[in-house]
Amino acid sequence: GLLLEVSTHGPHAVPRTSWKQQDLDLMEFSEPGVFNYSTLLLSEDRDALYVGAREAIFELSKKNVTIRNNKVQWTVTEIPMTMCTLKGKSKERDCLNYIRVLQVVDDQKLYVCGTHAFQPQCDYLNLADFSLEGRPEDGRGKCSFDPSQSFTTVMVDGELYSGTAYNFLGSEPIISRYSPPHSLLRTEYSTSWLNEPSFVFADVIRERKNRADGEDDKIYYFFTEVSVEYEFFGKLLIPRVARVCKGDLGGQRTLQKKWTSFLKAKLVCSMPELNFVFNVVHDVFILKGKEAKEDTLFYGVFTSQWGNVGLSAVCAYNMTAVEEVFTKGKYMQKATVEQSHTKWVRYNGIMPTPRPGACINNLMRQQNINSSLHLPDKTLQFVKDHPLLEDPILPIGNRPRLITKDVNYTQIVVERVLALDKTIYDVIFTGTDKGVLHKSVVFEEEVHIMEEIQLLKNSEPIKNLLLSSETQSLYVGSDSGVVQSPTAFCSRYSSCHDCILSRDPYCAWDPKTATCVNIVASPNQQSRSLIQSLDGDAHKCPSVPAVPQKDYQLVTVKPGSSAELPCLVKSNLAQLIWKSNGSVLTEASRFHFIAENGLLIYSVAPEDQGYYECWSVEWAPAAGKNFSRLMAGYTLTLDLPPRPRADPIATTFS
Amino acid sequence: GLLLEVSTHGPHAVPRTSWKQQDLDLMEFSEPGVFNYSTLLLSEDRDALYVGAREAIFELSKKNVTIRNNKVQWTVTEIPMTMCTLKGKSKERDCLNYIRVLQVVDDQKLYVCGTHAFQPQCDYLNLADFSLEGRPEDGRGKCSFDPSQSFTTVMVDGELYSGTAYNFLGSEPIISRYSPPHSLLRTEYSTSWLNEPSFVFADVIRERKNRADGEDDKIYYFFTEVSVEYEFFGKLLIPRVARVCKGDLGGQRTLQKKWTSFLKAKLVCSMPELNFVFNVVHDVFILKGKEAKEDTLFYGVFTSQWGNVGLSAVCAYNMTAVEEVFTKGKYMQKATVEQSHTKWVRYNGIMPTPRPGACINNLMRQQNINSSLHLPDKTLQFVKDHPLLEDPILPIGNRPRLITKDVNYTQIVVERVLALDKTIYDVIFTGTDKGVLHKSVVFEEEVHIMEEIQLLKNSEPIKNLLLSSETQSLYVGSDSGVVQSPTAFCSRYSSCHDCILSRDPYCAWDPKTATCVNIVASPNQQSRSLIQSLDGDAHKCPSVPAVPQKDYQLVTVKPGSSAELPCLVKSNLAQLIWKSNGSVLTEASRFHFIAENGLLIYSVAPEDQGYYECWSVEWAPAAGKNFSRLMAGYTLTLDLPPRPRADPIATTFS
Repeated sequence: GLLLEVSTHGPHAVPRTSWKQQDLDLMEFSEPGVFNYSTLLLSEDRDALYVGAREAIFELSKKNVTIRNNKVQWTVTEIPMTMCTLKGKSKERDCLNYIRVLQVVDDQKLYVCGTHAFQPQCDYLNLADFSLEGRPEDGRGKCSFDPSQSFTTVMVDGELYSGTAYNFLGSEPIISRYSPPHSLLRTEYSTSWLNEPSFVFADVIRERKNRADGEDDKIYYFFTEVSVEYEFFGKLLIPRVARVCKGDLGGQRTLQKKWTSFLKAKLVCSMPELNFVFNVVHDVFILKGKEAKEDTLFYGVFTSQWGNVGLSAVCAYNMTAVEEVFTKGKYMQKATVEQSHTKWVRYNGIMPTPRPGACINNLMRQQNINSSLHLPDKTLQFVKDHPLLEDPILPIGNRPRLITKDVNYTQIVVERVLALDKTIYDVIFTGTDKGVLHKSVVFEEEVHIMEEIQLLKNSEPIKNLLLSSETQSLYVGSDSGVVQSPTAFCSRYSSCHDCILSRDPYCAWDPKTATCVNIVASPNQQSRSLIQSLDGDAHKCPSVPAVPQKDYQLVTVKPGSSAELPCLVKSNLAQLIWKSNGSVLTEASRFHFIAENGLLIYSVAPEDQGYYECWSVEWAPAAGKNFSRLMAGYTLTLDLPPRPRADPIATTFS
Repeated sequence: GLLLEVSTHGPHAVPRTSWKQQDLDLMEFSEPGVFNYSTLLLSEDRDALYVGAREAIFELSKKNVTIRNNKVQWTVTEIPMTMCTLKGKSKERDCLNYIRVLQVVDDQKLYVCGTHAFQPQCDYLNLADFSLEGRPEDGRGKCSFDPSQSFTTVMVDGELYSGTAYNFLGSEPIISRYSPPHSLLRTEYSTSWLNEPSFVFADVIRERKNRADGEDDKIYYFFTEVSVEYEFFGKLLIPRVARVCKGDLGGQRTLQKKWTSFLKAKLVCSMPELNFVFNVVHDVFILKGKEAKEDTLFYGVFTSQWGNVGLSAVCAYNMTAVEEVFTKGKYMQKATVEQSHTKWVRYNGIMPTPRPGACINNLMRQQNINSSLHLPDKTLQFVKDHPLLEDPILPIGNRPRLITKDVNYTQIVVERVLALDKTIYDVIFTGTDKGVLHKSVVFEEEVHIMEEIQLLKNSEPIKNLLLSSETQSLYVGSDSGVVQSPTAFCSRYSSCHDCILSRDPYCAWDPKTATCVNIVASPNQQSRSLIQSLDGDAHKCPSVPAVPQKDYQLVTVKPGSSAELPCLVKSNLAQLIWKSNGSVLTEASRFHFIAENGLLIYSVAPEDQGYYECWSVEWAPAAGKNFSRLMAGYTLTLDLPPRPRADPIATTFS
């Protein structure tokens, strides 16, 4: 029927290996009294990770975030603070300066903005001496008033693009461009343009230089908003992608100082056969192609508005599919029904030319339209009333790449890894609201979660996640600090079996050194001798000679006392089997307790003596094989007291 | 935000006591080779529970369903069977006769229908000799073709009302009345009337006899269908209540042999503050008032279309609220938008009189409209086009009575119980798709799940659930059999604490006999001396003298061996605390293992000797108190061998 049975139909997604925070020795940074390390910026040229926190900006070493190279404080002065508290905001929580914008202006300066007690301000940060210029500018439209409100920003060619709220109450959403000395170019204040959006991401997609058609670069915005085209009992949320053209200057009369190129479309991330829709987007990562724009993909993490117990999905989209919709898609229009109701339906009428919302290109220039200021009023009026396109942006394969239960993904980054089979794999890193990172790979259409890593000590949300291929690191921002983690933990896989069964494209087994090595970190190794098999076929491992039973570890206990035989299997996909003298032990026996980390035999009796073996059996679905391995072997004996000499008096009783 | 956090905001709903199937010694009935015991009918006059199964009808004793008084088989003959298999249906599963209608005609006869190999048939069952008359009638419109399709039926004054599908494919839904010798009165085949409905329940609500306004009795249907008025990516389901008038005869020209009184409205069961909608209804139970119709309530069990992990809700509605909508509510109408789209909006135009869909009453009779055949064409044409009312039916208190996680409720019955505090409590019994029954009570607006009972051996859905106040029993039909359960398990609460903390309105503590007694089963007891406190205030129990430590059970073990100290606490709401020599034991100690049913100390050392106490601490939220009770006490000693006499040789070494 129509009802959902995700639990039985959905893909299984159990991370193979679970790393605990205390096992990993990650690099961490935080300072006493400073919180909300949620704005991160990696410098491409310098060895720097810039961190915007509450009332402070840090420069950390990107090789090692525990090293703090610089710090500047930026607090709120008395007057804005008083104003803020008078308006009913909390002094301790709201009326502080949360740094939310950190953008590169040039190799000398950053542009930084903070919420500044609900009166956002921006300033320039000199990198030479890590000091603020101290000539704060109005931050309205560039930075949010409210530190807890959604917000996104990107700097493109010295111009700051933001998605935020324009007023104190947070009720007036805005997508804007700040390009000094011009005033803001912005969206129309209308629910057709933006309807209670939650901004998650924005970035530029460049056109190739010297294109014959003279197409403009575009800035894409990703957000969730309240749908106008659908209806249910309450508010229906919908994930969107919107775009504007970099060269947009606004209209001459109509849409003066407003975008003439603002268009938006819905993102679809759903399981069509189950009628299940993931309609809230939380983060987007754009994987830009090296050369051709055609290679550019983007990944989004989604949940459902009704997914109250945490069903998260990752969908991937081709940028060309997005472009197709924006350049050729049908527009929607608002129609009035019976005087009082409205409904958004497809516009089937005649379209003005040039196409509404299109960027200026050579074809338009031939018609003497050299900038958006020259666009005809008909085109501008149309795009003002019809910013929404009907055609959906469908994910690659028409379904999520990954669905996980009991998890709320908040952040995503993706790295392309060239494996030894000469194939490029997209490795997906997703951060959760509980401080955990999932690392997944798509192999032959099937997703495999290789690892889950407890990155944060506390079970708090991952607020920001960056990846540096240069340092082979992930950088995580949270309310309580910054954590740096390697992208792979190959060396922690101690056997070839474990290294191969991990199915990690970063890792391969080096039979010479008998270690699991990171092929991305040290690509110049003699890769010919390395073993990697992303289907998890551990039979490719060199055969290991069986341990003779006589070499099993000897465990001797007193009769009636308990014996613990440790056996640690790291893989959550492996089944643990205990054998005693060749036969499999079951839970049924009341004198055995098969725990996660070993076997406990309490009240050991003489019949318990013998050989004990702990076997790990792991099914590798992509290889279609089971792999068994002896993890531990023990010889259990009783420490019997020496038989007493026959006692003549006692024997008379026998 | 708009996102859901049911997990943190929703009411907690953990059943206090869990009863396992094997603990309860329930009465069960099934016969080898017979399955699908899903149609149940309790006889009011006779000691009989009639059971419709696959190809068989049983008469069981309603006092004890293990007693089978009668059985008749009703198999499919060769020709329909061949037809069925030729049409591509499975011989073993589909082309059999599933009995789906069992209704009382009079004290001599039942009317029975079966799917009969996708060619539904009905017959009369003589109760005297429990034989079928053998003159089968066409069952189309009375019984479903498909045994797995949703279906509901009710017999009112010798007329059979059904909600089912009218064709082999199951694509033509129908709500019909069969009143021999007339032909079927039925719904229009139109998505405005019924749009892929799943029928769950139907029943009659009688008007008081001799009402001045001469109002007619009404038959209410409950179902989930695909919404026409809301839109999203896919199909949006919506729970409905529809009603028809008993005296409806159809129209003269318009709506000939169709209902002239078919109207429907949406049922709302939602958490408005969370924007969370339970939009699928699975079962309804009508709690009819003794005298005044105003007392009549109905309960529904709901899930969400997106509740893929099992969030179930129970909503209660006043029947007067339903009547209000049907007699005064606004109609919806289909409007065309831009030629090609439709939208359902409120009808604000002039209404024909008499009110479309209204039952014939004295006012109409004064206008010479004595039956629906006399209704004017304008009224009929209007109701044909406007069967849907705009106003919603809101639940009592505007929210669910009960929300439970990780459970899918399939069935509901409710019994009103007069407690010793002279208050009437509605006790809600809900059956799940895993064979479990929940028993809940609403106390001062807060719901308390008293018990969960594993009624079925297998984890299969409860398909039917009936309650008899006469036998104090619940009857459960499932694919594999019939189970009879008492409505209360008072005597299983062995202490006054447990009896009071259960908060079961059926149960009270009798201090004279020191037993927990069922006050409903034996209401003539000396109720003055009984103790009942539905807030769970166990301080009302007679005080129990403390057990002196010297009377604790002695446990003697050999040094180094393990000791098991059992302690069984039945309440899931209680916390179990172990004390050793007065201090609380924690999980930290590696030589203790605090299990569900006791304490395990392995490798007992001399320092482990002493007193051990198992305490149950239970919080009763309605009483606002904690109740602690000693559940078990032990004295642990070591069985030390007698100290050997000093050995002169050994002492030289010391």
